[in-house]
Amino acid sequence: MAEYQAPIKDMNYLLYDVFKSDTLWPTLPKLAEHVDRETSEAILLECAKIAEQVIAPLSREGDEVGVSFNNGQVTTAPGYKEAFNTYAEGGWTALGGDVNYGGMGMPKVITSLHEEMLCAADISFSLYPGLTAGAGLSLAKHASEEIKQRYLTRMYSGEWSATMCLTESHAGTDLGMIRTKAIPQENGSYKITGNKIFITGGEHDLTENIIHLVLAKLPDAPAGPRGISLFVVPKYKVNDDESLGDFNDVSCGSIEHKMGIHASSTCVINFDDSEGYLVGELNKGLACMFTMMNFERIGVGIQGLGASVRSYQNALEYAKDRVQSRSLSGVKSPDKAADSIMVHGDVRRMLLNMKALNEGSRALSLYIAMQLDIATYGEGDEQIKADKLTALLTPLAKAFFTDLGFENTVAGQQVFGGHGFIREWGQEQLVRDARIAQIYEGTNGIQAMDLLARKVAGSKGEFMQIFIDEANKFVKETTDEHMQEFIVPLSEAIDDLQKTTFEILSAASNNIEELGTSANDYLHVFGYTAMAFVWAKMANVSLCKMSEDEEFHQSKIHTARYYFARLLPRRLSLMATIKSGSEPMFNMPDELF
Amino acid sequence: MAEYQAPIKDMNYLLYDVFKSDTLWPTLPKLAEHVDRETSEAILLECAKIAEQVIAPLSREGDEVGVSFNNGQVTTAPGYKEAFNTYAEGGWTALGGDVNYGGMGMPKVITSLHEEMLCAADISFSLYPGLTAGAGLSLAKHASEEIKQRYLTRMYSGEWSATMCLTESHAGTDLGMIRTKAIPQENGSYKITGNKIFITGGEHDLTENIIHLVLAKLPDAPAGPRGISLFVVPKYKVNDDESLGDFNDVSCGSIEHKMGIHASSTCVINFDDSEGYLVGELNKGLACMFTMMNFERIGVGIQGLGASVRSYQNALEYAKDRVQSRSLSGVKSPDKAADSIMVHGDVRRMLLNMKALNEGSRALSLYIAMQLDIATYGEGDEQIKADKLTALLTPLAKAFFTDLGFENTVAGQQVFGGHGFIREWGQEQLVRDARIAQIYEGTNGIQAMDLLARKVAGSKGEFMQIFIDEANKFVKETTDEHMQEFIVPLSEAIDDLQKTTFEILSAASNNIEELGTSANDYLHVFGYTAMAFVWAKMANVSLCKMSEDEEFHQSKIHTARYYFARLLPRRLSLMATIKSGSEPMFNMPDELF
Repeated sequence: MAEYQAPIKDMNYLLYDVFKSDTLWPTLPKLAEHVDRETSEAILLECAKIAEQVIAPLSREGDEVGVSFNNGQVTTAPGYKEAFNTYAEGGWTALGGDVNYGGMGMPKVITSLHEEMLCAADISFSLYPGLTAGAGLSLAKHASEEIKQRYLTRMYSGEWSATMCLTESHAGTDLGMIRTKAIPQENGSYKITGNKIFITGGEHDLTENIIHLVLAKLPDAPAGPRGISLFVVPKYKVNDDESLGDFNDVSCGSIEHKMGIHASSTCVINFDDSEGYLVGELNKGLACMFTMMNFERIGVGIQGLGASVRSYQNALEYAKDRVQSRSLSGVKSPDKAADSIMVHGDVRRMLLNMKALNEGSRALSLYIAMQLDIATYGEGDEQIKADKLTALLTPLAKAFFTDLGFENTVAGQQVFGGHGFIREWGQEQLVRDARIAQIYEGTNGIQAMDLLARKVAGSKGEFMQIFIDEANKFVKETTDEHMQEFIVPLSEAIDDLQKTTFEILSAASNNIEELGTSANDYLHVFGYTAMAFVWAKMANVSLCKMSEDEEFHQSKIHTARYYFARLLPRRLSLMATIKSGSEPMFNMPDELF
Repeated sequence: MAEYQAPIKDMNYLLYDVFKSDTLWPTLPKLAEHVDRETSEAILLECAKIAEQVIAPLSREGDEVGVSFNNGQVTTAPGYKEAFNTYAEGGWTALGGDVNYGGMGMPKVITSLHEEMLCAADISFSLYPGLTAGAGLSLAKHASEEIKQRYLTRMYSGEWSATMCLTESHAGTDLGMIRTKAIPQENGSYKITGNKIFITGGEHDLTENIIHLVLAKLPDAPAGPRGISLFVVPKYKVNDDESLGDFNDVSCGSIEHKMGIHASSTCVINFDDSEGYLVGELNKGLACMFTMMNFERIGVGIQGLGASVRSYQNALEYAKDRVQSRSLSGVKSPDKAADSIMVHGDVRRMLLNMKALNEGSRALSLYIAMQLDIATYGEGDEQIKADKLTALLTPLAKAFFTDLGFENTVAGQQVFGGHGFIREWGQEQLVRDARIAQIYEGTNGIQAMDLLARKVAGSKGEFMQIFIDEANKFVKETTDEHMQEFIVPLSEAIDDLQKTTFEILSAASNNIEELGTSANDYLHVFGYTAMAFVWAKMANVSLCKMSEDEEFHQSKIHTARYYFARLLPRRLSLMATIKSGSEPMFNMPDELF
């Protein structure tokens, strides 16, 4: 397996040449004080070092050894504890945290690149700090001052970690059905009792305390999702002097044996009259949890990208080294027994698919992160617009990048031929690790429904129109004749997206099932169109800057052309299936399946 | 995991209603004597029993425990030896074998259905008899009478098993580079020396002897593929009285640790002056091996189908049981806390994709098997035509069915949500087991090149035209107005396939790289079109026979409609990417990747 090399150059190109973050940041008051290009460049360089040198080397053994469970205790994989200490000491657990509680307050464009590097190095490792960061976001936004002082500071320092406890065995997508109970106590706390499953990082030996964010219901709560409240439930209670107190009866019943992410503990967590503290308002827990879930959804999307970047780097190294058969158009390496497999069209197809989709995903994920930063730190109309765009693009990021991530890890494996199926090469691990990202944090089917039913239809098309207007503005502004090879098909794709949106909303006004049957295809039509938008943006920049670094920018232009020639057309089949409507799916009675 | 239920009804429907095997068989002299409907139906019923009751129950533990290696010995997974004995005693190892040496001589349409059931039950198990059957075919066609008498009989009886030894660490796709040597001896035998890797069933404890079919080169052989010869090399020599003789210095150096098919041994096999016997002519070993490889390629395609059938059955059972959220169009099960997830459009999409692609793959695989039977047992022009169709369709079967099989195991896993990622549910095993089928026996990229460069371009389009004429003949003959909803889009797809074929061949006459860059997409355009052909055939039969079994035939018609509405359009994107040509892939210099 190739050693991971963080694509710092591409990251800085996107941050400063394409998205002009150094012009944006000074306009966002709450960021302007502590974020600048110099600091950010230094952060990414340091992050690359820890990802490449400390975390990536743990991944293979982590997969083989995994986490182990013994009498309620979870032991993490070899080297994890030391690496986590190094990571925490480096301040990485505080990277995106609230500056008022010891966080570094870095914007999402920086933390998302940090997440990409972490996930490329090892998805399993990334989950421990990733969940903690998401929980921190929810607490920072919704918790009382007392809770923030008590918990956030130690989560940012890396002394404690955190989880999200949502799922129960009978309630995954449908959280309205949860049974975990919260009984109010006289001192203002709650006794929490119930069993949660699939809790990532629910138990481990990396930190001295684990802070669970738990969805539960009061005895008299309304039925369904409107009766859910959010509680902080620490594994160990915290004394008034901030020292660790008594065990809080939060126990790990077992861990799951999974297809991948073997070094991430996935736990059954049992709460047994455990003391919990309300976060936000009663019965509005789902909204508080969504602050975390939206963060995690973008983060999970980036897991797909991280695995995919690794897949490309490995497959490229293998393809350059492996000699097998001759080029169709004649011998290319007469000094060797065969040509490198780079000469074969189908190998180039797989490599270029990965390259174009990875660079496109990174660009699109940064575009989304930028909207989230404007939504979080901006003001006025721009803030409102960015908030809507973030809402629209979050389920897209989660589902589209993870679907592509899985496709690309499989493609990378295919480049390896038989060796791709053998564990020691490490390539098949990427496939197994990337697979979960399509499932957890809301399956990709749920993301598609969130996009189409809640965000697009829910806003009567307004959120989508904001995106379409942004893309069309770029189309109109970009009059350079060299750009027209990209602008013409981009404009066509945007128009088609608008038409398709309108057609689905019309059809759904007669038959609401049209939303469910179109959602997955629609998400992908949107994804490929949005990716065409950022690829055209990159092409525009690279054409202008060609003379500054010809190799880098030529590669961008070739890859952009490949994207428009061979990946954007994927939307054609999807639009055709959307047009076929819901009848072919719903006419068949269940008993005929 | 749902218990496997062999789809016997669908199999008989295809055999007799759709492909009218009972009319065909009496016209094929070498089959007519011993193959009839009554025998065949009884065979499939018995096969279903052993697959469902004996083999399927081994699969989960086989995955967990796997094969083990100790001092050159391989121990198979728990229960394998007993199950293999039962299987051999039932005569299944002889099913497709030459009747002159103890085989049952059943046609490919029957053995391929047997293979589907075996693979659905457990791909790992299926490989031991599967390789033996393929090797038997090669020996039956190319080996001397003495070798056939000595080896075939015991392979058919299940006393011995067989392998194919092709790959070496530096030579996979490119077999011309193999280094295994064969030195002629005075007694007419050869001393074989070399190291083979990825040898499925290369060593195990199921049979008393293992017969290796080995590709090797004589010292003075021409370079490249034209210098390859095929040898039989038994693990233990066979005495003149047919008793087992001395160890033949065939040793297993190690076994691979793999992503899936854990219960199948994948071995490094070392030959050290081992005694071997020539099969066929010197330096024409590749042609002899292709008899086996073509058999195996169809068989590997069927592995994809088998895993996919299992995936559908599991996912359907889960979807019917799992209640989560309410239908978009209103509560469907007011007595339950939530509706079954069957009500959700996206779940139906995944299930119907699997169902339509599985039934389509089974029909298409039987169509191909039927061509192979006519090619093997037929006479005159029909035999010649069938031989060409088989050559054309073999790489399609291998690559198309395994790509779909993998897609469908992933889709089934997605239906399970988080539970799909947990080992104990068994669903993720299907994904890991199915993945290899896209890689081994010639990667799917190689199959695509075999199809487009060797079969289509190599015959100057003749082989493809035979298929197109067959499909168009059906289109013209099918004038029933109720069939036009299928016939019109089928006819359009056939025309497009013909045009696309012509365009690629024209483009390739200027630039041969067009073959390599189009091959994968072309194979899939062909696949979806060919599957539309068999779906239309099924619809035609089911419309006629509706009154005989309304539930069964209504399900067929609904599924056919689904196929035409939502799966056939996949060809549109593929045709668009083919049109973009080879430039986007070859313009980028290697160093810019």
